[in-house]
Amino acid sequence: MRKIEHIGIAVNSLANSVPLFEKLLGIPCYKTESVEGERVNTAFFRTGENKIELLESMDPDGVIARFIEKKGEGIHHIAFDVEDIEAEMKRLKAEGFVLLNETPKQGADNKIVCFLHPKHTNGVLIELCSTNGANGL
Amino acid sequence: MRKIEHIGIAVNSLANSVPLFEKLLGIPCYKTESVEGERVNTAFFRTGENKIELLESMDPDGVIARFIEKKGEGIHHIAFDVEDIEAEMKRLKAEGFVLLNETPKQGADNKIVCFLHPKHTNGVLIELCSTNGANGL
Repeated sequence: MRKIEHIGIAVNSLANSVPLFEKLLGIPCYKTESVEGERVNTAFFRTGENKIELLESMDPDGVIARFIEKKGEGIHHIAFDVEDIEAEMKRLKAEGFVLLNETPKQGADNKIVCFLHPKHTNGVLIELCSTNGANGL
Repeated sequence: MRKIEHIGIAVNSLANSVPLFEKLLGIPCYKTESVEGERVNTAFFRTGENKIELLESMDPDGVIARFIEKKGEGIHHIAFDVEDIEAEMKRLKAEGFVLLNETPKQGADNKIVCFLHPKHTNGVLIELCSTNGANGL
Protein backbone atom coordinates (compact mmCIF):
# COMPACT_ATOMS: atom_id res chain seq x y z
CA MET A 1 0.00 0.00 0.00
CA ARG A 2 1.98 2.99 -1.23
CA LYS A 3 -0.65 5.72 -0.77
CA ILE A 4 -4.34 6.49 -1.19
CA GLU A 5 -4.88 6.68 -4.94
CA HIS A 6 -8.47 7.88 -4.85
CA ILE A 7 -11.68 8.02 -2.87
CA GLY A 8 -14.80 6.81 -4.70
CA ILE A 9 -18.07 8.62 -4.00
CA ALA A 10 -21.45 7.25 -5.14
CA VAL A 11 -23.72 9.90 -6.63
CA ASN A 12 -27.13 9.84 -8.29
CA SER A 13 -26.17 12.21 -11.07
CA LEU A 14 -22.83 13.43 -12.40
CA ALA A 15 -24.68 16.34 -13.99
CA ASN A 16 -25.59 17.56 -10.50
CA SER A 17 -22.55 16.41 -8.56
CA VAL A 18 -19.71 17.53 -10.83
CA PRO A 19 -20.62 21.24 -10.40
CA LEU A 20 -21.17 20.64 -6.67
CA PHE A 21 -17.68 19.15 -6.18
CA GLU A 22 -16.18 21.87 -8.36
CA LYS A 23 -17.62 24.43 -5.94
CA LEU A 24 -16.64 22.40 -2.89
CA LEU A 25 -13.05 21.73 -3.93
CA GLY A 26 -12.58 24.98 -5.82
CA ILE A 27 -11.10 23.10 -8.81
CA PRO A 28 -12.50 21.78 -12.11
CA CYS A 29 -13.22 18.14 -12.92
CA TYR A 30 -10.35 17.08 -15.21
CA LYS A 31 -11.73 13.86 -16.70
CA THR A 32 -14.89 11.84 -17.20
CA GLU A 33 -14.84 8.20 -18.20
CA SER A 34 -17.34 5.37 -18.60
CA VAL A 35 -16.40 1.90 -17.36
CA GLU A 36 -18.65 -0.50 -19.25
CA GLY A 37 -17.58 -3.56 -17.24
CA GLU A 38 -18.75 -1.93 -14.00
CA ARG A 39 -21.67 -0.10 -15.64
CA VAL A 40 -20.57 3.24 -14.18
CA ASN A 41 -19.82 6.72 -15.40
CA THR A 42 -17.01 8.41 -13.50
CA ALA A 43 -15.68 11.94 -13.04
CA PHE A 44 -12.28 12.77 -11.54
CA PHE A 45 -10.81 15.59 -9.47
CA ARG A 46 -7.25 15.98 -8.22
CA THR A 47 -6.48 17.07 -4.69
CA GLY A 48 -2.88 16.87 -3.51
CA GLU A 49 -1.53 13.45 -4.46
CA ASN A 50 -5.04 11.91 -4.38
CA LYS A 51 -8.02 11.82 -6.70
CA ILE A 52 -11.72 12.03 -5.96
CA GLU A 53 -13.77 9.74 -8.23
CA LEU A 54 -17.50 10.37 -8.51
CA LEU A 55 -19.44 7.25 -9.54
CA GLU A 56 -22.84 7.32 -11.27
CA SER A 57 -24.64 4.10 -12.19
CA MET A 58 -25.51 3.48 -15.85
CA ASP A 59 -28.31 1.12 -14.80
CA PRO A 60 -31.02 1.30 -12.16
CA ASP A 61 -29.86 -2.08 -10.78
CA GLY A 62 -26.09 -1.50 -11.06
CA VAL A 63 -23.77 -1.85 -8.07
CA ILE A 64 -23.68 1.92 -7.43
CA ALA A 65 -27.45 2.30 -7.77
CA ARG A 66 -27.93 -0.52 -5.27
CA PHE A 67 -25.40 1.03 -2.88
CA ILE A 68 -27.28 4.36 -2.99
CA GLU A 69 -30.64 2.62 -2.53
CA LYS A 70 -29.32 0.95 0.61
CA LYS A 71 -27.10 3.63 2.15
CA GLY A 72 -27.78 6.86 0.26
CA GLU A 73 -25.25 8.89 -1.69
CA GLY A 74 -21.84 9.01 -0.04
CA ILE A 75 -18.36 7.55 0.15
CA HIS A 76 -18.27 4.19 -1.60
CA HIS A 77 -14.63 3.06 -1.35
CA ILE A 78 -11.00 3.96 -0.66
CA ALA A 79 -8.51 2.88 -3.30
CA PHE A 80 -4.87 2.28 -2.43
CA ASP A 81 -2.09 2.45 -4.97
CA VAL A 82 -0.02 -0.74 -4.83
CA GLU A 83 3.16 -1.53 -6.68
CA ASP A 84 2.52 -5.22 -7.32
CA ILE A 85 -1.20 -5.95 -7.06
CA GLU A 86 -0.87 -9.73 -7.18
CA ALA A 87 1.73 -9.76 -4.39
CA GLU A 88 -0.47 -7.46 -2.28
CA MET A 89 -3.55 -9.64 -2.91
CA LYS A 90 -1.55 -12.66 -1.78
CA ARG A 91 -0.26 -10.87 1.34
CA LEU A 92 -3.75 -9.69 2.36
CA LYS A 93 -5.33 -13.09 1.73
CA ALA A 94 -2.70 -14.67 3.99
CA GLU A 95 -3.60 -12.06 6.65
CA GLY A 96 -7.22 -13.25 6.56
CA PHE A 97 -8.78 -10.59 4.34
CA VAL A 98 -11.29 -11.73 1.71
CA LEU A 99 -10.82 -10.73 -1.94
CA LEU A 100 -13.96 -9.91 -3.93
CA ASN A 101 -12.18 -10.85 -7.16
CA GLU A 102 -9.47 -13.49 -7.22
CA THR A 103 -7.74 -12.02 -10.26
CA PRO A 104 -7.20 -8.30 -10.95
CA LYS A 105 -9.89 -6.76 -13.17
CA GLN A 106 -10.07 -3.66 -15.34
CA GLY A 107 -11.08 -0.48 -13.51
CA ALA A 108 -11.37 3.17 -14.51
CA ASP A 109 -8.35 5.37 -15.20
CA ASN A 110 -6.27 2.64 -16.82
CA LYS A 111 -5.99 0.66 -13.59
CA ILE A 112 -6.25 -2.99 -12.73
CA VAL A 113 -8.09 -3.43 -9.47
CA CYS A 114 -9.10 -5.81 -6.71
CA PHE A 115 -11.67 -5.18 -3.96
CA LEU A 116 -11.58 -6.50 -0.38
CA HIS A 117 -14.77 -7.64 1.34
CA PRO A 118 -15.83 -4.82 3.71
CA LYS A 119 -17.03 -7.35 6.30
CA HIS A 120 -13.39 -7.88 7.27
CA THR A 121 -12.26 -4.23 6.98
CA ASN A 122 -14.53 -2.48 9.47
CA GLY A 123 -17.19 -1.85 6.87
CA VAL A 124 -14.80 0.02 4.56
CA LEU A 125 -14.75 -1.14 0.95
CA ILE A 126 -11.06 -1.19 0.04
CA GLU A 127 -9.81 -1.23 -3.55
CA LEU A 128 -6.25 -2.10 -4.49
CA CYS A 129 -5.20 -0.54 -7.76
CA SER A 130 -2.17 -0.57 -9.98
CA THR A 131 -1.55 1.11 -13.31
CA ASN A 132 -2.35 -1.36 -16.08
CA GLY A 133 0.81 -2.70 -17.61
CA ALA A 134 2.99 -1.85 -14.62
CA ASN A 135 3.38 -5.54 -13.82
CA GLY A 136 3.53 -6.69 -17.39
CA LEU A 137 -0.19 -7.49 -17.35
CA MET B 1 -8.59 22.95 0.05
CA ARG B 2 -4.92 22.09 -0.24
CA LYS B 3 -5.16 18.30 0.07
CA ILE B 4 -6.90 15.49 1.92
CA GLU B 5 -5.48 15.63 5.43
CA HIS B 6 -7.12 12.45 6.72
CA ILE B 7 -10.00 10.03 6.36
CA GLY B 8 -11.96 9.34 9.54
CA ILE B 9 -13.28 5.80 10.06
CA ALA B 10 -15.84 4.96 12.77
CA VAL B 11 -15.02 1.75 14.64
CA ASN B 12 -16.54 -0.04 17.61
CA SER B 13 -13.23 -0.82 19.26
CA LEU B 14 -9.72 0.54 18.76
CA ALA B 15 -8.43 -2.58 20.53
CA ASN B 16 -9.80 -4.66 17.63
CA SER B 17 -9.38 -2.21 14.76
CA VAL B 18 -5.85 -0.92 15.34
CA PRO B 19 -4.33 -4.41 14.75
CA LEU B 20 -6.68 -4.90 11.79
CA PHE B 21 -5.55 -1.68 10.07
CA GLU B 22 -1.92 -2.47 10.91
CA LYS B 23 -2.35 -5.73 8.98
CA LEU B 24 -4.29 -4.06 6.17
CA LEU B 25 -1.92 -1.15 5.64
CA GLY B 26 1.23 -3.05 6.59
CA ILE B 27 2.34 -0.20 8.88
CA PRO B 28 2.05 0.50 12.62
CA CYS B 29 -0.32 2.97 14.26
CA TYR B 30 1.90 5.94 15.20
CA LYS B 31 -0.33 7.81 17.65
CA THR B 32 -3.43 7.47 19.80
CA GLU B 33 -5.22 10.47 21.27
CA SER B 34 -8.43 11.16 23.17
CA VAL B 35 -10.50 14.20 22.23
CA GLU B 36 -12.63 14.95 25.28
CA GLY B 37 -14.71 17.62 23.54
CA GLU B 38 -15.88 15.13 20.91
CA ARG B 39 -15.92 12.18 23.36
CA VAL B 40 -13.79 10.05 21.03
CA ASN B 41 -10.60 8.04 21.22
CA THR B 42 -8.55 8.19 18.04
CA ALA B 43 -5.70 6.22 16.46
CA PHE B 44 -3.62 7.46 13.51
CA PHE B 45 -1.83 5.84 10.57
CA ARG B 46 0.20 7.55 7.85
CA THR B 47 -0.19 6.61 4.20
CA GLY B 48 1.49 8.80 1.61
CA GLU B 49 0.67 12.43 2.44
CA ASN B 50 -2.60 11.42 4.15
CA LYS B 51 -3.57 10.02 7.52
CA ILE B 52 -6.18 7.44 8.45
CA GLU B 53 -7.92 8.30 11.72
CA LEU B 54 -9.85 5.56 13.51
CA LEU B 55 -12.59 6.91 15.77
CA GLU B 56 -14.01 5.04 18.78
CA SER B 57 -16.77 6.54 20.91
CA MET B 58 -16.13 7.09 24.62
CA ASP B 59 -19.87 7.00 25.32
CA PRO B 60 -22.69 4.75 24.13
CA ASP B 61 -24.61 7.84 22.96
CA GLY B 62 -21.68 9.77 21.47
CA VAL B 63 -21.69 10.98 17.86
CA ILE B 64 -19.58 8.03 16.63
CA ALA B 65 -21.65 5.46 18.54
CA ARG B 66 -24.82 6.92 17.00
CA PHE B 67 -23.26 6.90 13.52
CA ILE B 68 -22.37 3.20 13.89
CA GLU B 69 -25.84 2.39 15.24
CA LYS B 70 -27.39 3.97 12.16
CA LYS B 71 -24.94 3.03 9.39
CA GLY B 72 -22.56 0.44 10.82
CA GLU B 73 -18.81 0.76 11.11
CA GLY B 74 -17.22 2.52 8.14
CA ILE B 75 -15.95 5.76 6.68
CA HIS B 76 -17.20 8.69 8.74
CA HIS B 77 -15.65 11.77 7.12
CA ILE B 78 -13.03 13.20 4.78
CA ALA B 79 -10.91 16.01 6.19
CA PHE B 80 -9.30 18.59 3.93
CA ASP B 81 -6.28 20.61 4.93
CA VAL B 82 -6.96 24.31 4.44
CA GLU B 83 -4.56 27.20 4.82
CA ASP B 84 -6.99 29.75 6.27
CA ILE B 85 -9.98 27.94 7.78
CA GLU B 86 -12.07 31.07 8.35
CA ALA B 87 -11.61 32.25 4.76
CA GLU B 88 -12.55 28.77 3.48
CA MET B 89 -15.63 28.64 5.74
CA LYS B 90 -16.69 32.02 4.37
CA ARG B 91 -16.11 30.94 0.75
CA LEU B 92 -18.10 27.69 1.17
CA LYS B 93 -20.96 29.42 2.98
CA ALA B 94 -21.20 31.89 0.09
CA GLU B 95 -21.35 28.89 -2.30
CA GLY B 96 -24.41 27.57 -0.43
CA PHE B 97 -22.79 24.92 1.78
CA VAL B 98 -23.99 24.68 5.39
CA LEU B 99 -21.46 24.81 8.24
CA LEU B 100 -22.13 22.56 11.23
CA ASN B 101 -20.15 24.91 13.48
CA GLU B 102 -19.99 28.61 12.78
CA THR B 103 -16.61 29.07 14.45
CA PRO B 104 -13.66 26.65 14.22
CA LYS B 105 -13.50 24.17 17.10
CA GLN B 106 -10.74 22.05 18.61
CA GLY B 107 -10.22 18.69 16.90
CA ALA B 108 -7.70 15.86 17.31
CA ASP B 109 -4.06 16.16 16.24
CA ASN B 110 -3.69 19.84 17.22
CA LYS B 111 -6.15 20.99 14.55
CA ILE B 112 -8.96 23.48 14.51
CA VAL B 113 -11.86 22.12 12.50
CA CYS B 114 -15.20 22.88 10.90
CA PHE B 115 -17.68 20.35 9.47
CA LEU B 116 -20.02 20.84 6.51
CA HIS B 117 -23.56 19.44 6.56
CA PRO B 118 -23.54 16.23 4.46
CA LYS B 119 -27.02 17.02 3.12
CA HIS B 120 -25.40 19.50 0.76
CA THR B 121 -22.28 17.47 -0.08
CA ASN B 122 -23.74 14.28 -1.59
CA GLY B 123 -23.96 12.59 1.78
CA VAL B 124 -20.23 13.02 2.46
CA LEU B 125 -19.34 14.54 5.83
CA ILE B 126 -16.55 17.01 5.02
CA GLU B 127 -14.20 18.41 7.65
CA LEU B 128 -12.01 21.44 7.08
CA CYS B 129 -8.94 21.43 9.26
CA SER B 130 -6.03 23.69 9.90
CA THR B 131 -3.11 23.34 12.30
CA ASN B 132 -3.97 25.19 15.50
CA GLY B 133 -2.06 28.42 15.71
CA ALA B 134 -1.40 28.62 11.98
CA ASN B 135 -3.80 31.55 11.68
CA GLY B 136 -2.85 33.16 14.93
CA LEU B 137 -5.76 31.46 16.73
